[in-house]
Amino acid sequence: MTEQQQSNTPQQVGVGLVGFGTVGTGVWETIQKNGELITGRSNHQFQINIVKAAVRDISKKRIDDAPAELFTADWNDVVNDNSVDIVVELIGGTTTAFDIVAAALKLGKTVVTGNKALLAERGAELFALSQQHNAAIHFEAAVAGGIPIIKAVQDSYVGNDIESMVGIINGTSNYILERMTTAGLAYPEALKEAQELGYAEADPTLDVNGWDAAHKAILLATLAYGSVIDPEEVYVRGIERVTSTDIEFAKNLGYNVKLLSVVHKHEDGKVELRTQPSFIPKSHILSSVNGVFNAVAVKGDASGDALFYGRGAGKEPTASSVVADIVDAAHTISSRAPHRGFLPYSDESNVKKIEDTTTPYYVRFDVTDRPGVVAEIAQILANDGVGISGTHSPVDPENPDKEFVDMVFLLHTCPFGKLKATLKKVLALDSVNSEPVVFRIENL
Amino acid sequence: MTEQQQSNTPQQVGVGLVGFGTVGTGVWETIQKNGELITGRSNHQFQINIVKAAVRDISKKRIDDAPAELFTADWNDVVNDNSVDIVVELIGGTTTAFDIVAAALKLGKTVVTGNKALLAERGAELFALSQQHNAAIHFEAAVAGGIPIIKAVQDSYVGNDIESMVGIINGTSNYILERMTTAGLAYPEALKEAQELGYAEADPTLDVNGWDAAHKAILLATLAYGSVIDPEEVYVRGIERVTSTDIEFAKNLGYNVKLLSVVHKHEDGKVELRTQPSFIPKSHILSSVNGVFNAVAVKGDASGDALFYGRGAGKEPTASSVVADIVDAAHTISSRAPHRGFLPYSDESNVKKIEDTTTPYYVRFDVTDRPGVVAEIAQILANDGVGISGTHSPVDPENPDKEFVDMVFLLHTCPFGKLKATLKKVLALDSVNSEPVVFRIENL
Repeated sequence: MTEQQQSNTPQQVGVGLVGFGTVGTGVWETIQKNGELITGRSNHQFQINIVKAAVRDISKKRIDDAPAELFTADWNDVVNDNSVDIVVELIGGTTTAFDIVAAALKLGKTVVTGNKALLAERGAELFALSQQHNAAIHFEAAVAGGIPIIKAVQDSYVGNDIESMVGIINGTSNYILERMTTAGLAYPEALKEAQELGYAEADPTLDVNGWDAAHKAILLATLAYGSVIDPEEVYVRGIERVTSTDIEFAKNLGYNVKLLSVVHKHEDGKVELRTQPSFIPKSHILSSVNGVFNAVAVKGDASGDALFYGRGAGKEPTASSVVADIVDAAHTISSRAPHRGFLPYSDESNVKKIEDTTTPYYVRFDVTDRPGVVAEIAQILANDGVGISGTHSPVDPENPDKEFVDMVFLLHTCPFGKLKATLKKVLALDSVNSEPVVFRIENL
Repeated sequence: MTEQQQSNTPQQVGVGLVGFGTVGTGVWETIQKNGELITGRSNHQFQINIVKAAVRDISKKRIDDAPAELFTADWNDVVNDNSVDIVVELIGGTTTAFDIVAAALKLGKTVVTGNKALLAERGAELFALSQQHNAAIHFEAAVAGGIPIIKAVQDSYVGNDIESMVGIINGTSNYILERMTTAGLAYPEALKEAQELGYAEADPTLDVNGWDAAHKAILLATLAYGSVIDPEEVYVRGIERVTSTDIEFAKNLGYNVKLLSVVHKHEDGKVELRTQPSFIPKSHILSSVNGVFNAVAVKGDASGDALFYGRGAGKEPTASSVVADIVDAAHTISSRAPHRGFLPYSDESNVKKIEDTTTPYYVRFDVTDRPGVVAEIAQILANDGVGISGTHSPVDPENPDKEFVDMVFLLHTCPFGKLKATLKKVLALDSVNSEPVVFRIENL
């Protein structure tokens, strides 16, 4: 940048991309298409130029209007380029991506990234570098694709003590669970379909094991409460072991099964932070979030209840968020103002132990049908003070004497630790054949 | 502000309130409660202090912890106070409020306001002052209370060409229509109930005549397309003449009636901008927005479809948005950076003539039942090329020979101007007793 602040010529802000795949291409196209509009909207304060892009295979033809000299195979060429003010990391992972982001921050350059795993796993190191070198990290694209939930929590709700954020923030899992629910598919079939449609990666591990959503929930909690959170403290279960049996029972009981991330600050200051497939009442708005859409419900002490809904992934929506971050950064860079990237402001992460969190539950036992089995299980629950609010073991109308194997209890709210201890005792019964299946019933 | 930029002591940013009613009290309470949190979240860059407040009756006791010297009866004392960096206008209206905002801008002070009427009616003058005196106007609270839709459109979707924004943005009307729909109340009863519950003002004119929503839609369009819009160019109809008959017919046909604001940029660059009670399919998510809640669906060329939902009014939600604006302003004030308030960036408002806008329609005729009446109406529609997609004139099952009076036609998409001309011809028929009732059926 050579222009003086407040001059009439827009200042040139240089952007370097590391990674030029789907999202990188989307960022390039968006800037090409709407760049003039963006300059106008900045009151002609700046103009954004993509000046360098690092790619794995430099010989691959990517996009027609991108000049050959834009590309390099070495990310250092991007980070070290003097005309690059903003480094956009789009390669994913937590190793090379870490090196790139760290190198950029050490040079005082702004970083824009959509890498939730990187920030959730190694945020402590990176935010420390951000603080030390006075260089911002922006990460709107890391949570819920095109939904501006990061800016909402960081800026729009800055005056709020955030009570809770509850979200469906993994589109792949949401698509799979929806297909299991509406089309009656088994998990492997639904996963295969999602892969064929491009909604799931060839290696879908982080999506279906819950960690992609958990990383996003960690970032939301970090924004809302100001502290870096150790992923080890967070409870995460994925959808891999959800069966059609439980999906069907959920429907009969008036619920949908959704992979839900819950961030909830309790009155004692402790933060409940968990991701798992949960039962959500069909009547609740989150139950209607289908396909690859995402939604986050936010409750602040002043703002009250709000919901943000939109596309959680994809080339253009993610590019939209990356570009918003680039523009945000360009404002402070072009005016030499202190950056407005997030920095932790609290040392205390204070995550509530999962054993101490409470909800009602759905528990399904695989039992051998013989006289007394219901009484035995009910007695163990009663002895431990775990209340039963309902049961569900439907009978085949044409064969009422058929042996039942699935016995479902709906249990009143109790601490998860207490439930686990009680279920251990139930599992010791001869007539209980395997580990009980537990779903939380969410109180939304 | 006397501190140097980047020092360790937070800079003191002074806020003056003009108006200390419901929202003003909410702003005071929010800053008292969460002020330290806000300072922490700013990385200790600034501290916000409410230093002056103008009220109508200075003798009235307002709030326990507010010192008497805070208050003045003269708004000039607030605007001219040297320690006031940000003037928050909360009195409403377009006359004194205009003077206050103009005076503040002329002094180079930042203005925060939730006054949609002021900005929609007199935005041209005020944005010119904002530009001239390099002083920002922030107005998150002007649209949809606690929902951060202004920041979303202005900042988060800055890289998007915005295709459409469709919203339920007047909670009073939405409450009244919902009660007419679910409880079968007539309009006057539903309005009375809304007033008793505090959801409608003693003078509900601007809410029920559609102008409150229209003002908000004008502001959204101004943000999205960069130009000030003349309210005269905008089509506005309220809910005052919605009858139980049409609500009931809508339900039978699979729709809900909602006061809908539509902003839609067409491929020819013209912007459709209208507010009216419309038919919305029951299955659409906007149909589920009930009570005093607001929702805005935004579609950008990159972001795709998104929906923002939350509390559209009320003390705390509105205060939450005012505080977010104050904090936004405090960032640029404390860093002496160019402000980030909205400024128009296009001279061309380019509003599409309402006659040229197209949707399908519901039209109800009040007719005298005699042989030939259906044929006569249908023939006029046919002659003008207005297609009929359905009819609805239910018969009393116990009295099938009863004279019908309400004849409903569902009409295929056509320009509104063409429809009006055709309906004029229908009205000339002897057997048609009064002006036909028209609702748009929204293609969402």
